[in-house]
Amino acid sequence: MTTNVHVAGVGSTKFGVLPGRNLQSLAVEAARAALADSNIPTGKIGCVFVGNFVGGIMTGQELLGPIVAADLGLSNVAAIKIEAACASSSAAVRIGHDLIRAGAEDAVLVIGVERLTGAPRDALTTAMTAAIDQGTEGRAGLTFPGFWGMVMARHMHLYGTTREQVAAVTVKNRRFGATNPLAQFQKPVTLEEVMASPPISDPILRFDCCPATDGAAALVLTSESLAKKHGAPAVRMAASVLVNGPVRITDYDEITVHDGTVRAARRAYETAGVGPDDIDVAELHDCFSIAEIVDSEDLGFFAKGEGGPAVLRAPSARNSKVAINLSGGLLSKGHPTGATGCGQIYEVVMQMRGRHPNQVPNARFGLTHNGGGTAAAVTVHILEAPQ
Amino acid sequence: MTTNVHVAGVGSTKFGVLPGRNLQSLAVEAARAALADSNIPTGKIGCVFVGNFVGGIMTGQELLGPIVAADLGLSNVAAIKIEAACASSSAAVRIGHDLIRAGAEDAVLVIGVERLTGAPRDALTTAMTAAIDQGTEGRAGLTFPGFWGMVMARHMHLYGTTREQVAAVTVKNRRFGATNPLAQFQKPVTLEEVMASPPISDPILRFDCCPATDGAAALVLTSESLAKKHGAPAVRMAASVLVNGPVRITDYDEITVHDGTVRAARRAYETAGVGPDDIDVAELHDCFSIAEIVDSEDLGFFAKGEGGPAVLRAPSARNSKVAINLSGGLLSKGHPTGATGCGQIYEVVMQMRGRHPNQVPNARFGLTHNGGGTAAAVTVHILEAPQ
Repeated sequence: MTTNVHVAGVGSTKFGVLPGRNLQSLAVEAARAALADSNIPTGKIGCVFVGNFVGGIMTGQELLGPIVAADLGLSNVAAIKIEAACASSSAAVRIGHDLIRAGAEDAVLVIGVERLTGAPRDALTTAMTAAIDQGTEGRAGLTFPGFWGMVMARHMHLYGTTREQVAAVTVKNRRFGATNPLAQFQKPVTLEEVMASPPISDPILRFDCCPATDGAAALVLTSESLAKKHGAPAVRMAASVLVNGPVRITDYDEITVHDGTVRAARRAYETAGVGPDDIDVAELHDCFSIAEIVDSEDLGFFAKGEGGPAVLRAPSARNSKVAINLSGGLLSKGHPTGATGCGQIYEVVMQMRGRHPNQVPNARFGLTHNGGGTAAAVTVHILEAPQ
Repeated sequence: MTTNVHVAGVGSTKFGVLPGRNLQSLAVEAARAALADSNIPTGKIGCVFVGNFVGGIMTGQELLGPIVAADLGLSNVAAIKIEAACASSSAAVRIGHDLIRAGAEDAVLVIGVERLTGAPRDALTTAMTAAIDQGTEGRAGLTFPGFWGMVMARHMHLYGTTREQVAAVTVKNRRFGATNPLAQFQKPVTLEEVMASPPISDPILRFDCCPATDGAAALVLTSESLAKKHGAPAVRMAASVLVNGPVRITDYDEITVHDGTVRAARRAYETAGVGPDDIDVAELHDCFSIAEIVDSEDLGFFAKGEGGPAVLRAPSARNSKVAINLSGGLLSKGHPTGATGCGQIYEVVMQMRGRHPNQVPNARFGLTHNGGGTAAAVTVHILEAPQ
């Protein structure tokens, strides 16, 4: 006996540089917005899951579950922090989804939150590498720009992907971000500007990298019946999958194929009873521009090696087979690591409701893909618009 | 439709100062022991939950879920870290319990792990205060010895609890720790030694404080049917409760009454269909000796104000109404924060199996109480011996 799980309400802060805000104030702002949006009475919430990655390292604050729950006026809830690096809050969604689906809970509040700005650049790099195994590759000096630089070089070598194709991802996502009021970067960039930006980790240039971002996003997950009872603007969660993948480069057979994404997608499509061709809109984990190309292939939108040309073929993306990162993606909307997963689902829920600033007409199925570490924790969520 | 949840197997490292070990090696050691103990095939595990508090701050390592899962040879699992300060791993048990009880999972591996030694004393104090709201009391300089010092002074003032009664908790727990091979402190202390130890946070003395500890403990949780199928030495989990409590002293009506513990206990007794008088053995969260007294009252073992005299009345504790902290407790077994909750359940499972080094004959019901922050996250678990 299982029940359908719905996203009954969503809320988000602005993503960007938000000085003077601490984790709990951001989390509470997003959570209050989601609760108000959902019409679900606060007293129905049984669990508060806070997705957060480096709150301890960057701000010295843990225990976010009980602190945020208390500030929301909730007592007698199971309030915890869930961490899976940059996939923290979507991993929390998966746990909340399963508890509701099986009937253990009726309503779960999932919040993603992070503060990454305001610290020295070194502190941020150190914090991010907490998602690399410090016993092996972390100690050897690997960073995420380093990892993705290797992936990009190899992708160009194996499949003939060009520098321009990769740069076009940033151009596309910056254009969508320009019309998303929540986005950190709201100014388009040209292909020439991307190509002329300084090198970071060859062949990755500065405009291939997502920014450091502060922000929070929140979802109220409920059973179908509770959402209906309270007239929530609900969107059905057709699949919620979390799998683990290789945690070290040396565990990869081939670093241009992210096994975690392939397996998570396969299971999500199976659960939802759809295929990649049925997906109208998708939010992918474009922490670096090459990542969107790799992910679009591993999710089955394009054959391996076809992701690069596809970016150039569908420069507007709103007319393409699947419209990718209409939010601006991590590259333009920003990447408040622990908040990113909930933020992606927020965007797709808005598409499913027909209320997104970059709306795709008649979008029926939307997908989010969120990755933690070197694709070591991968979530795929599929949402379906109300019929 | 719900199923009974069993602890199918348990494992633990030694608790103590374990130089040269990182979080993942400790976690993997405890997990392998629990899997072997349970007879459950590794492939049955659907989720790996790693309870950990300050791994990020103390060691710079996050993403413990996927890293530990990979090192255990597990792929396609939902692997996350769960954090609720010093109650991290017992909070993870509660989530795993609920997933199995509702039928969403058949087997969940819960691991608690922490490394607290080897860093400068200042670093440890800073890390621990991550469980205090940095927006208010943390910024004002509150620490946990400070919090418990206030609780102890107030308990002595209101109820006439004496310095000797509180010191007797340490004497009792050190005596039990001396015969627990897993314990960090294996040497008894006298009342005179406790009373003569240097002041830490008036009226708390050094021997009233638990040590900084490294260690890991792990549990394999399964459905009753899976445990039976594989002949696991299973112990039924009769209740698994997590509630949030006040996160600031200023939220307390009365700091000698820990509302989170009172509510968690009430719900656990109700779920298990037992009362405090039915509990034979209990592991309580004695991070400071006064905490055991406060907890023993809030759990209903003694009336408020009777916890102090009770320690002196039952100096051996193995003959008392309820035998408390036969493991040595946090004061003697040690307090590897994120690992403590699983470690407590490990101890009670051994009592339920009749195989504890400080065994109580015919113990039928055992209870664990684990607290995070200023009793801001509280778990109560009740276990029942096989009949």
